[in-house]
Amino acid sequence: MQLRRIARVESSLTDAATAPKQGPEGAPEAWLVFSPDVLPALEGIAPGDRILVLTWLDRAERDVLRVHPRDDRANPMRGVFATRSADRPNPLGLHEVEVLAIDGERMHVRPLEAVDGTPVVDVKPVL
Amino acid sequence: MQLRRIARVESSLTDAATAPKQGPEGAPEAWLVFSPDVLPALEGIAPGDRILVLTWLDRAERDVLRVHPRDDRANPMRGVFATRSADRPNPLGLHEVEVLAIDGERMHVRPLEAVDGTPVVDVKPVL
Repeated sequence: MQLRRIARVESSLTDAATAPKQGPEGAPEAWLVFSPDVLPALEGIAPGDRILVLTWLDRAERDVLRVHPRDDRANPMRGVFATRSADRPNPLGLHEVEVLAIDGERMHVRPLEAVDGTPVVDVKPVL
Repeated sequence: MQLRRIARVESSLTDAATAPKQGPEGAPEAWLVFSPDVLPALEGIAPGDRILVLTWLDRAERDVLRVHPRDDRANPMRGVFATRSADRPNPLGLHEVEVLAIDGERMHVRPLEAVDGTPVVDVKPVL
Protein backbone atom coordinates (compact mmCIF):
# COMPACT_ATOMS: atom_id res chain seq x y z
CA MET A 1 0.00 0.00 0.00
CA GLN A 2 2.44 2.53 -1.32
CA LEU A 3 1.03 5.93 -2.29
CA ARG A 4 2.44 7.95 -5.14
CA ARG A 5 2.31 11.74 -5.30
CA ILE A 6 0.02 12.90 -8.11
CA ALA A 7 0.35 16.62 -7.33
CA ARG A 8 1.75 19.00 -4.75
CA VAL A 9 0.14 21.94 -2.96
CA GLU A 10 1.43 25.43 -3.74
CA SER A 11 0.21 27.74 -0.97
CA SER A 12 1.03 30.87 0.99
CA LEU A 13 0.66 28.72 4.13
CA THR A 14 3.99 27.38 5.32
CA ASP A 15 3.48 26.61 9.03
CA ALA A 16 1.14 23.75 9.91
CA ALA A 17 0.96 24.89 13.54
CA THR A 18 -0.63 28.23 12.65
CA ALA A 19 -2.56 27.21 9.52
CA PRO A 20 -6.38 27.08 9.77
CA LYS A 21 -7.57 23.68 10.97
CA GLN A 22 -10.26 23.41 8.28
CA GLY A 23 -10.74 25.09 4.93
CA PRO A 24 -13.82 27.14 5.90
CA GLU A 25 -11.95 28.61 8.87
CA GLY A 26 -10.20 31.22 6.76
CA ALA A 27 -7.95 29.04 4.60
CA PRO A 28 -6.60 30.73 1.46
CA GLU A 29 -6.75 29.89 -2.21
CA ALA A 30 -4.03 27.54 -3.35
CA TRP A 31 -2.73 25.75 -6.44
CA LEU A 32 -2.46 22.03 -7.05
CA VAL A 33 0.43 21.33 -9.42
CA PHE A 34 -0.06 17.94 -11.07
CA SER A 35 2.51 15.54 -12.44
CA PRO A 36 2.34 15.75 -16.24
CA ASP A 37 1.80 12.00 -16.56
CA VAL A 38 -1.55 12.09 -14.69
CA LEU A 39 -3.09 15.01 -16.62
CA PRO A 40 -5.46 12.72 -18.61
CA ALA A 41 -7.04 11.79 -15.27
CA LEU A 42 -8.28 15.41 -14.86
CA GLU A 43 -10.46 15.34 -17.99
CA GLY A 44 -14.00 16.32 -17.07
CA ILE A 45 -13.13 18.59 -14.14
CA ALA A 46 -14.09 22.22 -14.81
CA PRO A 47 -14.05 25.56 -12.97
CA GLY A 48 -16.98 25.77 -10.56
CA ASP A 49 -16.82 22.06 -9.69
CA ARG A 50 -16.55 21.01 -6.07
CA ILE A 51 -13.96 18.29 -5.53
CA LEU A 52 -12.42 16.34 -2.69
CA VAL A 53 -8.65 16.61 -2.46
CA LEU A 54 -6.85 13.88 -0.53
CA THR A 55 -3.43 14.79 0.82
CA TRP A 56 -0.64 13.08 2.70
CA LEU A 57 0.04 15.25 5.75
CA ASP A 58 3.76 14.61 5.81
CA ARG A 59 4.42 16.75 8.90
CA ALA A 60 2.06 14.66 11.05
CA GLU A 61 2.94 12.12 13.74
CA ARG A 62 1.79 8.57 13.01
CA ASP A 63 2.09 7.06 16.49
CA VAL A 64 -0.51 9.34 18.12
CA LEU A 65 -3.82 7.59 18.91
CA ARG A 66 -5.53 10.12 21.23
CA VAL A 67 -5.50 13.92 21.16
CA HIS A 68 -7.09 16.96 22.72
CA PRO A 69 -9.39 17.97 19.83
CA ARG A 70 -8.34 21.18 18.08
CA ASP A 71 -5.08 21.18 20.09
CA ASP A 72 -7.04 22.67 23.00
CA ARG A 73 -6.13 21.08 26.33
CA ALA A 74 -9.54 22.17 27.66
CA ASN A 75 -11.09 19.53 25.37
CA PRO A 76 -11.05 15.99 26.84
CA MET A 77 -8.83 13.49 25.03
CA ARG A 78 -10.49 11.58 22.19
CA GLY A 79 -9.39 8.91 19.78
CA VAL A 80 -7.92 10.37 16.59
CA PHE A 81 -10.48 8.47 14.44
CA ALA A 82 -13.20 10.56 16.19
CA THR A 83 -11.37 13.77 15.16
CA ARG A 84 -9.85 15.39 12.09
CA SER A 85 -6.42 15.54 13.75
CA ALA A 86 -3.55 15.38 11.26
CA ASP A 87 -1.75 13.09 13.70
CA ARG A 88 -3.10 9.57 13.07
CA PRO A 89 -1.77 6.18 11.87
CA ASN A 90 -2.22 7.12 8.19
CA PRO A 91 -2.03 10.92 7.95
CA LEU A 92 -4.47 11.37 5.08
CA GLY A 93 -6.07 14.80 4.75
CA LEU A 94 -9.51 15.28 3.20
CA HIS A 95 -10.37 18.71 1.82
CA GLU A 96 -13.51 19.83 -0.01
CA VAL A 97 -12.65 22.72 -2.34
CA GLU A 98 -14.05 24.64 -5.28
CA VAL A 99 -12.13 24.58 -8.57
CA LEU A 100 -11.47 28.20 -9.60
CA ALA A 101 -9.39 27.60 -12.72
CA ILE A 102 -7.36 24.97 -14.53
CA ASP A 103 -4.28 25.96 -16.49
CA GLY A 104 -2.44 22.93 -17.88
CA GLU A 105 -1.00 21.07 -14.92
CA ARG A 106 -2.02 23.80 -12.44
CA MET A 107 -5.43 23.81 -10.74
CA HIS A 108 -6.50 26.83 -8.68
CA VAL A 109 -8.73 25.89 -5.72
CA ARG A 110 -10.21 27.35 -2.54
CA PRO A 111 -10.22 27.13 0.39
CA LEU A 112 -7.31 24.83 1.28
CA GLU A 113 -5.70 24.59 4.71
CA ALA A 114 -2.86 22.27 3.62
CA VAL A 115 0.58 23.88 3.74
CA ASP A 116 2.93 24.54 0.85
CA GLY A 117 4.56 21.39 -0.49
CA THR A 118 1.99 18.93 0.89
CA PRO A 119 1.70 15.89 -1.41
CA VAL A 120 -1.69 15.30 -3.06
CA VAL A 121 -2.60 11.63 -3.50
CA ASP A 122 -6.12 11.68 -4.97
CA VAL A 123 -8.90 13.89 -6.32
CA LYS A 124 -12.56 12.82 -6.38
CA PRO A 125 -15.80 14.53 -7.33
CA VAL A 126 -18.21 15.48 -4.54
CA LEU A 127 -21.24 13.22 -4.98
CA MET B 1 4.04 7.36 1.86
CA GLN B 2 3.42 3.82 3.05
CA LEU B 3 -0.07 3.05 4.36
CA ARG B 4 -0.70 0.58 7.14
CA ARG B 5 -3.89 -1.40 7.52
CA ILE B 6 -5.83 -0.30 10.61
CA ALA B 7 -8.81 -2.62 10.00
CA ARG B 8 -10.28 -4.95 7.43
CA VAL B 9 -13.79 -5.14 5.98
CA GLU B 10 -15.88 -8.21 6.80
CA SER B 11 -18.75 -8.31 4.30
CA SER B 12 -21.09 -10.62 2.45
CA LEU B 13 -19.84 -8.94 -0.75
CA THR B 14 -17.03 -10.89 -2.36
CA ASP B 15 -17.06 -9.84 -6.02
CA ALA B 16 -16.05 -6.26 -6.80
CA ALA B 17 -17.47 -6.55 -10.33
CA THR B 18 -21.02 -7.14 -9.10
CA ALA B 19 -20.91 -5.13 -5.84
CA PRO B 20 -22.93 -1.89 -5.70
CA LYS B 21 -20.88 1.06 -6.95
CA GLN B 22 -21.85 3.30 -4.04
CA GLY B 23 -23.18 2.59 -0.57
CA PRO B 24 -26.67 4.05 -1.10
CA GLU B 25 -27.15 1.82 -4.16
CA GLY B 26 -28.16 -1.19 -2.08
CA ALA B 27 -24.90 -1.98 -0.31
CA PRO B 28 -25.22 -4.20 2.77
CA GLU B 29 -24.23 -3.81 6.38
CA ALA B 30 -20.65 -4.82 7.10
CA TRP B 31 -18.15 -5.07 9.94
CA LEU B 32 -14.86 -3.26 10.31
CA VAL B 33 -12.45 -5.41 12.32
CA PHE B 34 -9.74 -3.20 13.82
CA SER B 35 -6.20 -4.08 14.79
CA PRO B 36 -6.07 -4.27 18.60
CA ASP B 37 -3.22 -1.76 18.76
CA VAL B 38 -5.32 1.07 17.28
CA LEU B 39 -8.40 0.63 19.50
CA PRO B 40 -7.61 3.73 21.59
CA ALA B 41 -8.04 5.77 18.39
CA LEU B 42 -11.76 4.80 18.31
CA GLU B 43 -12.60 6.47 21.64
CA GLY B 44 -15.43 8.93 21.14
CA ILE B 45 -17.14 7.10 18.26
CA ALA B 46 -20.61 5.85 19.21
CA PRO B 47 -23.54 4.07 17.56
CA GLY B 48 -25.56 6.52 15.50
CA ASP B 49 -22.50 8.49 14.41
CA ARG B 50 -21.85 9.06 10.74
CA ILE B 51 -18.23 8.43 9.79
CA LEU B 52 -16.06 8.41 6.69
CA VAL B 53 -14.22 5.14 6.08
CA LEU B 54 -11.16 5.28 3.84
CA THR B 55 -10.19 2.02 2.22
CA TRP B 56 -7.42 0.74 -0.04
CA LEU B 57 -9.17 -0.86 -3.02
CA ASP B 58 -6.61 -3.58 -3.50
CA ARG B 59 -8.35 -5.17 -6.52
CA ALA B 60 -8.12 -1.92 -8.53
CA GLU B 61 -5.80 -1.09 -11.42
CA ARG B 62 -3.42 1.78 -10.77
CA ASP B 63 -2.36 2.59 -14.33
CA VAL B 64 -5.84 3.55 -15.57
CA LEU B 65 -6.29 7.32 -16.11
CA ARG B 66 -9.56 7.45 -18.11
CA VAL B 67 -12.70 5.33 -17.84
CA HIS B 68 -16.25 5.03 -19.04
CA PRO B 69 -18.06 6.21 -15.89
CA ARG B 70 -19.94 3.44 -14.07
CA ASP B 71 -18.37 0.86 -16.41
CA ASP B 72 -20.98 1.82 -19.02
CA ARG B 73 -19.50 2.14 -22.50
CA ALA B 74 -22.40 4.43 -23.42
CA ASN B 75 -20.84 7.06 -21.13
CA PRO B 76 -18.05 9.07 -22.78
CA MET B 77 -14.56 8.52 -21.36
CA ARG B 78 -13.60 10.80 -18.46
CA GLY B 79 -10.53 11.25 -16.34
CA VAL B 80 -10.60 9.05 -13.24
CA PHE B 81 -10.22 12.10 -10.96
CA ALA B 82 -13.62 13.28 -12.29
CA THR B 83 -15.17 9.94 -11.28
CA ARG B 84 -15.37 7.60 -8.29
CA SER B 85 -13.77 4.78 -10.28
CA ALA B 86 -11.80 2.35 -8.10
CA ASP B 87 -9.17 2.25 -10.85
CA ARG B 88 -6.92 5.30 -10.27
CA PRO B 89 -3.28 6.02 -9.41
CA ASN B 90 -3.92 5.65 -5.67
CA PRO B 91 -6.95 3.37 -5.24
CA LEU B 92 -8.36 5.01 -2.10
CA GLY B 93 -12.05 4.41 -1.44
CA LEU B 94 -14.18 6.91 0.49
CA HIS B 95 -17.36 5.63 2.13
CA GLU B 96 -19.81 7.52 4.33
CA VAL B 97 -21.51 5.08 6.71
CA GLU B 98 -23.56 5.01 9.89
CA VAL B 99 -22.15 3.26 12.95
CA LEU B 100 -24.65 0.65 14.12
CA ALA B 101 -22.71 -0.92 16.98
CA ILE B 102 -19.22 -1.25 18.41
CA ASP B 103 -18.16 -4.47 20.10
CA GLY B 104 -14.50 -4.39 21.11
CA GLU B 105 -12.46 -4.41 17.91
CA ARG B 106 -15.54 -4.91 15.71
CA MET B 107 -17.59 -2.00 14.38
CA HIS B 108 -20.89 -2.66 12.60
CA VAL B 109 -21.64 -0.12 9.84
CA ARG B 110 -23.98 0.48 6.90
CA PRO B 111 -24.12 0.75 3.99
CA LEU B 112 -20.70 -0.32 2.70
CA GLU B 113 -19.97 -1.34 -0.89
CA ALA B 114 -16.37 -2.47 -0.24
CA VAL B 115 -15.83 -6.20 -0.61
CA ASP B 116 -14.79 -8.69 2.05
CA GLY B 117 -11.15 -8.36 3.04
CA THR B 118 -10.66 -4.79 1.81
CA PRO B 119 -8.06 -3.00 3.96
CA VAL B 120 -9.26 0.06 5.89
CA VAL B 121 -6.67 2.83 6.22
CA ASP B 122 -8.50 5.64 8.05
CA VAL B 123 -11.72 6.64 9.80
CA LYS B 124 -12.83 10.26 10.18
CA PRO B 125 -15.94 11.96 11.54
CA VAL B 126 -18.31 13.56 9.06
CA LEU B 127 -18.07 17.31 9.69
